Amino acid sequence: MPPYNLYKGFSKLSPQEKRRLVLSGLEDVSVAEETLLSFQHPDGQTQKVLSEFSENTLSNYVLPYGVAPNFLINGKVTMVPMVTEESSVVAAASSAAAFWAGRGGFAATVDNMEKVGQLHFIYSGDVSALMLAEGGLSAYLRQRAKPLTANMEKRGGGIVDIRIKDFSAQLANYFQLHVTFNTADAMGANFINTVLEEFAAGLSDYFSETPGFSGDEAEPLMAILSNYTPNCLAKVSVCCDIAALGNPGGMEAGEFVRRFVQAVRIAEVDVYRATTHNKGIMNGVDAVILATGNDFRAVEAGVHAYASRSGQYRSLSRADASEGQFRFTLEIPLALGTLGGLTSLHPLASLSLKILGRPSAKELMMIAASAGLANNFAAVRSLVTTGIQAGHMRMHLPNLLKLHHASPEEAQRVEDHFAGKKISSRAVEDFLQNLRKKQTQ
Amino acid sequence: MPPYNLYKGFSKLSPQEKRRLVLSGLEDVSVAEETLLSFQHPDGQTQKVLSEFSENTLSNYVLPYGVAPNFLINGKVTMVPMVTEESSVVAAASSAAAFWAGRGGFAATVDNMEKVGQLHFIYSGDVSALMLAEGGLSAYLRQRAKPLTANMEKRGGGIVDIRIKDFSAQLANYFQLHVTFNTADAMGANFINTVLEEFAAGLSDYFSETPGFSGDEAEPLMAILSNYTPNCLAKVSVCCDIAALGNPGGMEAGEFVRRFVQAVRIAEVDVYRATTHNKGIMNGVDAVILATGNDFRAVEAGVHAYASRSGQYRSLSRADASEGQFRFTLEIPLALGTLGGLTSLHPLASLSLKILGRPSAKELMMIAASAGLANNFAAVRSLVTTGIQAGHMRMHLPNLLKLHHASPEEAQRVEDHFAGKKISSRAVEDFLQNLRKKQTQ
Repeated sequence: MPPYNLYKGFSKLSPQEKRRLVLSGLEDVSVAEETLLSFQHPDGQTQKVLSEFSENTLSNYVLPYGVAPNFLINGKVTMVPMVTEESSVVAAASSAAAFWAGRGGFAATVDNMEKVGQLHFIYSGDVSALMLAEGGLSAYLRQRAKPLTANMEKRGGGIVDIRIKDFSAQLANYFQLHVTFNTADAMGANFINTVLEEFAAGLSDYFSETPGFSGDEAEPLMAILSNYTPNCLAKVSVCCDIAALGNPGGMEAGEFVRRFVQAVRIAEVDVYRATTHNKGIMNGVDAVILATGNDFRAVEAGVHAYASRSGQYRSLSRADASEGQFRFTLEIPLALGTLGGLTSLHPLASLSLKILGRPSAKELMMIAASAGLANNFAAVRSLVTTGIQAGHMRMHLPNLLKLHHASPEEAQRVEDHFAGKKISSRAVEDFLQNLRKKQTQ
Repeated sequence: MPPYNLYKGFSKLSPQEKRRLVLSGLEDVSVAEETLLSFQHPDGQTQKVLSEFSENTLSNYVLPYGVAPNFLINGKVTMVPMVTEESSVVAAASSAAAFWAGRGGFAATVDNMEKVGQLHFIYSGDVSALMLAEGGLSAYLRQRAKPLTANMEKRGGGIVDIRIKDFSAQLANYFQLHVTFNTADAMGANFINTVLEEFAAGLSDYFSETPGFSGDEAEPLMAILSNYTPNCLAKVSVCCDIAALGNPGGMEAGEFVRRFVQAVRIAEVDVYRATTHNKGIMNGVDAVILATGNDFRAVEAGVHAYASRSGQYRSLSRADASEGQFRFTLEIPLALGTLGGLTSLHPLASLSLKILGRPSAKELMMIAASAGLANNFAAVRSLVTTGIQAGHMRMHLPNLLKLHHASPEEAQRVEDHFAGKKISSRAVEDFLQNLRKKQTQ
């Protein structure tokens, strides 16, 4: 372990000094430094932009940047950029997309894109007076925030609604301003937070200036957006005649549908299964979020909190079969942006949006939801037919070969041997060991 | 919008052909192609490894690779590699780490690292006979999986327990084998899935071969690990005398603690706040997960499902003040690996693990949890004192300058003007516009 010491002023060091200090305790300092430098962008200006996204940056971290073709979404063929480190996510999305493109594709809608912000405050005055002041306070705060909201209003967004919520039964004297926003094509976090902080200042002023209040009954505690966005939902579905499904994974269509529907129901009743089921959805969603410069922690938190809204954590997708039709749907909260943030600053996020045809935030929500449903479909299809490992391990095989330092000849022998056979880490290792034993004999 | 068509055999194209096809509809094809190529790694072999992590890879996507120094975790100074695109996450982690390093640092523990796998099956026979067969079935399956588990057992892992769970009250004829695993320093997804698929084959065989069963009463439906890991928890806390807190964010210590504790309580009672509170924890956790080649979707799903285990989605951290002591703790399920997967294949994940001193999975859990608590502390500290935007917007300023194509001179003027002032997107834009108006007059 590198023997690091506590260090004051680290952030003030130059990138090179930071690299040297971080690597100083390693066995192979110069190799490590070369590794870091090799991941830098060759253009200094571009690297500067990338480095300044975050702090104490030593280099760039890389993840594969790929595409899933053949997504037919609301009748439009869409090429979906995806960023993921996980084998078989892009392959699975592509496979499901092509499958459904031949069966009508994905039908997606977004009814509402409401974002939420909260001003949390302690209030020790008369509660009924507070609740009666809702309208006046709301008008006052809207007026006060005008200079901050004018630009957003020009783009069709702004403050939608301001409500006072009484939580004093759960926590003494605790109240909220629950504020809903329309942030147009921006994700809107900075806009919402800036407005809410102005509200925090405004709250105290309002009570000071309004007859009937003394001015010190309200203490603003914190002001920040919420990543829980149950009214910012994308809905997407695929649907076809059961007979038109063919033989998914080599299984007769009726049998497949029965098993598929059962598998999705299980994810509605069991939290252990629901967690992984929804993880499979997020494999697709997050890959699009990363590729377009959005914030996956924000979306993940909102999505999984939404999955627990009934009091039990459940599947976000539903499958059913009735009147000869198979239907698979997903309803998922996705507060995304195609304007602001890194969307135009990151050269590859910007390229992703071009490949997607410069979508609105609403369109991007539908695309990400479609990717989520596609990955969910592919995963459950594998699970109820061939098993998940057959496809996954085939995609993971190059990683195993690299891990065991297989030569090109050995790699070919492995690929020939395992064509049509079950691949496991152990089986590949054993095969290579045998091969090498034979060669040394 | 690029006019894409449905395309068969896309995955068989060469990377160059894929790039050409994907970019074909853009206005600036050659610029876009150059952009993609500029993000490739200069070493062909390294690029091949990176490209083969996923499918249909066009290039590498990049995120800033940074470090947060001064983490004192269980008495050891730790330099924490972090990968994040979000301004101020690394700065906040570093600031909180340094703050707590002067107050005893982070105390972290991991009691259990149990992973879970499930074999879901339909059973139409006699239920009491099934439940009685638990021991026999379990022994049979363990024996059958020996060739798959031998290696893992050498490393101290293996199958811990096999239970039959009866879900037939919720869903007709639905049962599970609930299997717990110890996967040592691997995250273990491939190992668990391979063993479970062997169990699926074994289940049918067991009932065929065992007297009292006909062989066709059990239908394996799917076999896969669970990302819900409530018995794979890291616990971490910071603690000090209230008086020793100094004046966080310019606030008197007692006042600060009162507001901080209240803010955390709010995240226990309100789902809107809890979601963002936990998102702030995951800002730190995911940055470590990405930097070490782990799978953030898996962890996110498990973490947020765990946050909803009481029937309401709540904060994962707790704060309290009693007997003159301030204490802030986090309990978080983290199924991480430091062996297998991409941990050794990704040159930067591998470097991160070296910087961390080649930690065991257990140690990495404690480090990631500490990063989560650090980011949570920094966020709540800002929220209850200066507001979140002051620090965040200062870190985001370079992005705003780039967005408005500010020259170095303009950037300097902006930095001078906003020193000690409130920064907002709007204010920076206005300032630059005024500056430019003056210059053209």
